[in-house]
Amino acid sequence: MTAYQELERRHARIAAIGDALGVLGWDTQTIMPDGANEGRAEQTATLSVIVHEMATDPRLADLLAEAEGDDSLDSWQRANLREMRRNHVRATAVPTELVEATSKATSVCEMTWRTARADSDFAALLPSLRTVLDCVRESAAAKGAVMGLSPYDALLDEYDPGARTARIDELFADLAGFLPDLIGRALDKQAGQPTPLPPAGPFSVEAQRALGVSMMERMGFDFQRGRLDVSLHPFCGGATDDVRITTRYAEEDFTKALMGVIHETGHALYEQGRPRAYLAQPVGQARGMAVHESQSLIMEMQASRSAEFITWLAPVVREAFGGTGPEWEVDNLRRLYGRVERGFIRVYADEVTYPAHVILRYRLEKALVSGDLALADLPGAWNDGMLELVGVVPPDDSLGCLQDIHWPSGGWGYFPSYTLGAMTAAQLFATAREAEPEIVPALGRGDFAPLVGWLRTNIHQTGCFHASGDALLTAATGRPLDVSVFKRHLETRYLGG
Amino acid sequence: MTAYQELERRHARIAAIGDALGVLGWDTQTIMPDGANEGRAEQTATLSVIVHEMATDPRLADLLAEAEGDDSLDSWQRANLREMRRNHVRATAVPTELVEATSKATSVCEMTWRTARADSDFAALLPSLRTVLDCVRESAAAKGAVMGLSPYDALLDEYDPGARTARIDELFADLAGFLPDLIGRALDKQAGQPTPLPPAGPFSVEAQRALGVSMMERMGFDFQRGRLDVSLHPFCGGATDDVRITTRYAEEDFTKALMGVIHETGHALYEQGRPRAYLAQPVGQARGMAVHESQSLIMEMQASRSAEFITWLAPVVREAFGGTGPEWEVDNLRRLYGRVERGFIRVYADEVTYPAHVILRYRLEKALVSGDLALADLPGAWNDGMLELVGVVPPDDSLGCLQDIHWPSGGWGYFPSYTLGAMTAAQLFATAREAEPEIVPALGRGDFAPLVGWLRTNIHQTGCFHASGDALLTAATGRPLDVSVFKRHLETRYLGG
Repeated sequence: MTAYQELERRHARIAAIGDALGVLGWDTQTIMPDGANEGRAEQTATLSVIVHEMATDPRLADLLAEAEGDDSLDSWQRANLREMRRNHVRATAVPTELVEATSKATSVCEMTWRTARADSDFAALLPSLRTVLDCVRESAAAKGAVMGLSPYDALLDEYDPGARTARIDELFADLAGFLPDLIGRALDKQAGQPTPLPPAGPFSVEAQRALGVSMMERMGFDFQRGRLDVSLHPFCGGATDDVRITTRYAEEDFTKALMGVIHETGHALYEQGRPRAYLAQPVGQARGMAVHESQSLIMEMQASRSAEFITWLAPVVREAFGGTGPEWEVDNLRRLYGRVERGFIRVYADEVTYPAHVILRYRLEKALVSGDLALADLPGAWNDGMLELVGVVPPDDSLGCLQDIHWPSGGWGYFPSYTLGAMTAAQLFATAREAEPEIVPALGRGDFAPLVGWLRTNIHQTGCFHASGDALLTAATGRPLDVSVFKRHLETRYLGG
Repeated sequence: MTAYQELERRHARIAAIGDALGVLGWDTQTIMPDGANEGRAEQTATLSVIVHEMATDPRLADLLAEAEGDDSLDSWQRANLREMRRNHVRATAVPTELVEATSKATSVCEMTWRTARADSDFAALLPSLRTVLDCVRESAAAKGAVMGLSPYDALLDEYDPGARTARIDELFADLAGFLPDLIGRALDKQAGQPTPLPPAGPFSVEAQRALGVSMMERMGFDFQRGRLDVSLHPFCGGATDDVRITTRYAEEDFTKALMGVIHETGHALYEQGRPRAYLAQPVGQARGMAVHESQSLIMEMQASRSAEFITWLAPVVREAFGGTGPEWEVDNLRRLYGRVERGFIRVYADEVTYPAHVILRYRLEKALVSGDLALADLPGAWNDGMLELVGVVPPDDSLGCLQDIHWPSGGWGYFPSYTLGAMTAAQLFATAREAEPEIVPALGRGDFAPLVGWLRTNIHQTGCFHASGDALLTAATGRPLDVSVFKRHLETRYLGG
C-alpha cells in the first residue's frame, strides 16, 4: 500500500465516523427523546474525540510528506492530498485541551443564551460569552500562526478555504454603500403597489408536506438517498447517500415552509451530487460554506422567486390548498415573495435587507476578535450598526445582539458565508442562464432539470477539486466573485427594469 | 487515576460507541432510505472495528491485572471487573482476521438467505451457510480453548454467561419428554371448546398505536427516555436512556401488534431499569439473553395472558376499536390468546409449541457445530425433528429449515435463550406473585406497577452483579432454573386446574 493509499484508507474511516455523527446529529434535532440528551452528548463527544485523534495522528505527517513526493498521482489525487494537508495543519494547530475547553465553553454558553435571549438579558450572557470568545481568539491565533494568517482570517478559512478579510472588506464595503439607498428605493416602489394579501389558512401539515415532497422531486432530490422531516430549526444534514433535510410547518402560512424546503433541497442536491469516486475523501466534500449557501440560494432566491417560476407556481399552490380569490394570483404571490422590510431579525429578513444584517455581524465579530471592540460594548455597537445598515434600531437585545446562536455556539467567522453565498448564487445563475438558454423557460414549466444539470457539472461534481470558492467560481463563471452581478440582480428584481 | 478508574473510563468510551451503534441500528431498521445501505454498513463496520480495537488493546490486560489486585474495590466494582475480564478474554480469543471474515461471510449469507427462503431453495444457501458455519466453528473453538469450554458451550456463553450444554440438555430433555403429550392434550381440550372468533377489522393504525402507547404507559415505559416506532421485524434497541421499541401493524388484526408491544416493552423496562451508577459499565448491562427474554415473556405470557388481565383488557380493546358482538367477550379473547396449534413457523408459534421449535434448533445447531450432523443433511434432520417434537412435517424448506435468519447471520447458540427465557419468566412470576400478593389483583385492574416494582428490585437494578443467569435466578427466587415451574404453568393454563 502506498502512502497515498494509506491516507485514503484513513480518511475514509474519518469520513465514516463523520457520517455516523451526521446521522446522530439529525436524530438529536428531530426525534430523540429529551431524556437521551446526556447520553447523546457522550456519544457525540466520544466520536468527536476519536476523529480528532485520527486527524492528529503523528503518523499522518509522515504519510503526507511521502505522498506529496509521489509523482504518479493524478490531478484529483493531488487535490485530495492538498485538502488532507489543509485539514491536518488545522487539526494539529490547536492543542487538544483547547479543543475540549472550547467545546465545554460553547455548551455552557448555548444553554445560558437560551435563557438570556428569552429574558433579553445581555449581562447574563456576558461572562460565558467572554469565555467562548477567549477560546475562539486563542484557537484563531494558534491556527493563524501556523497558517500565516491573521486570527480572524484563520476563522474565515475554517468555513471558506481561501476567504480573506482584505477581500471581504472590499466586497462588503461596496455592498454597504449600495444597500441603504436600494432599500429605500425598493420600499418607495413597494409603497406605490398594492399591499400583498397573504392566503388565508389553515393549511394542513399533510398538504404542505405533500407539496414540499413534490417540489423536491421536481428539483431532482433522490428520496432513495435522503429524507424530509420536521425540526424546530430547519437544516440539511445526515450522511453520504443519506441526505436529510428538515422544515417546520405553520398551519397559518404555507409560504415559509415551501421556500424553506426549496432552500434546504438546494443544499441537499449539492450533497447528493458530490463526486462518487471521492465521496469519502476530503476532495469529495463541498467547497466551503459560501458555495454551499449559494446552492440553497440559487434555488430559493434566483430560481424560485423568478417571475417565470412564480407564474407556474401560483396555480399549483392554489390547487394544492384548494384556494380561491385574488390572494392566489401570480402578481399577488410575486409581491408576497418580493416583500422588503426593515426588520430586526436576520432569519426573517428578505433578500435585500439580509446582506445588511450580515455585514453588521461581520464588522462586529471581526472587531471583537481583534480586540477593537469590547464585548461589553456589543449591544450599543449592534444598535448603531442596525441604524446605519438596516435603518432601524431594535427595542431590546433579544431582537438585537442576542438573536443568533452563532457566537454562543462558537461559530465565529461563519456569518459572511451567507452573503458571499447570495452573491455567488447570483453570479452562477447569470452564467448558467446564458450558457443554457433553456434554464429560465424550463422554470416557467416548473422544471428544474436544466438548471440542476448545469450545477451538477459545474459545481456539485467538482467537490473540492478547486482550492477555494473563488477558484471554483472562476472555473464555473470565468471570473472570481463580482459584487456587481448581485447588485444588478437586486436592482432588476426590486426596482424593476 | 487508579487502574480500576482507567478501566471504567475506557469502558465508558466503549459503551458510548456501542450506544451510537444502537441508534444507528435502530435507524437502519426503521427509517433509513434504501440507498444509504452501503454507507451505513461502512459506518457500522468502522465503529465496530474501533470497539474491537479498544476491547483488545494490550494495555487492558495490564490494567485488569493491576485492578484485580486492588483491595479497596467494593462488591459492585469487583463484579464490574469480572465482567471486564470476561469481555477481554472473549474479545482477544479470536483473531481480527477471523472477526472480519465472519462479518463478511454473514453479510453474504444473509443476502443469499433472503432469496433462498423465498425460493425454498436450500441448495442455493448451502455454500454460503457452510462458510458461515466454518467461521463460527473456528471462532467457537478459539474461544472455547481460551475459556476451557467446548466450542458450542463457548457459543452459548456468548449470549448467556454461564449457560452450559450439560445443563440445557437436561432441562430440554425433561421438556421434550413432556411437550408432545401436553400438546396433544391441550389440542384435545381445545377441540371441546368453541372455536375463538377473531374480532373483525379493519383496525386503524392510529387506534392500534394509541392503544399500544397507553399500554406502554401503564407498564411504566418512560417516553422521556424512549420511543415506539414501526419496523418490519419488531425489536427493542436504541441506547442508554434512549430505548426504542418497534412493532408492525396489520389492519385486519390488532391482537398481534398489541401483544408485540407488550413483549418489547418487557425488554425495554429491563433496559430502562438498569443500575444508573453503572449504566456505561459492563456490570450495568442486562444479565444475558435468557434473562432478557424472561422480561419480555413475563409481560407477554405470564402477566398479559393471565385470566385476570384479559378480563380487564377485553372491555378496553372493545372500546378502543368501537367493537360489538361476542368476539369481544372475555372468554373468547382468552381462547384467542390461548390457542394452541401444531404449526411450521417458530415466530407464529404459541406458548406451548414454541419450546418444541426451540429444542429442535438447539439439537441441530449443537450437532452442526460438533460435526455430528453434516450441513447438507439439515433439511431431512429438520423435518424428522419437527415430526417428533411438534407433530407436523413442513411441506418445503421455506417453512422448514430456511425460516430463521439466525444461522445465516451468525447467531449460533442464541436459540436456547428463548425457552430458557420462558422458563425463567414462569419461575420469576411464581416467586413474585407469592412475594407480592398485590401483583395478580393489580393486573386485574390493568395495573402493572406491583409486578414491575418487584422486577426492578430483583432483576433490572441488579445488572450483571450476579455472574450468571442462574446465579441471578437463585438470588431472586431461591433456586436455579427449575423446569417443573414452567411445566406446571403450562398444565394449569392449557389443561386447566
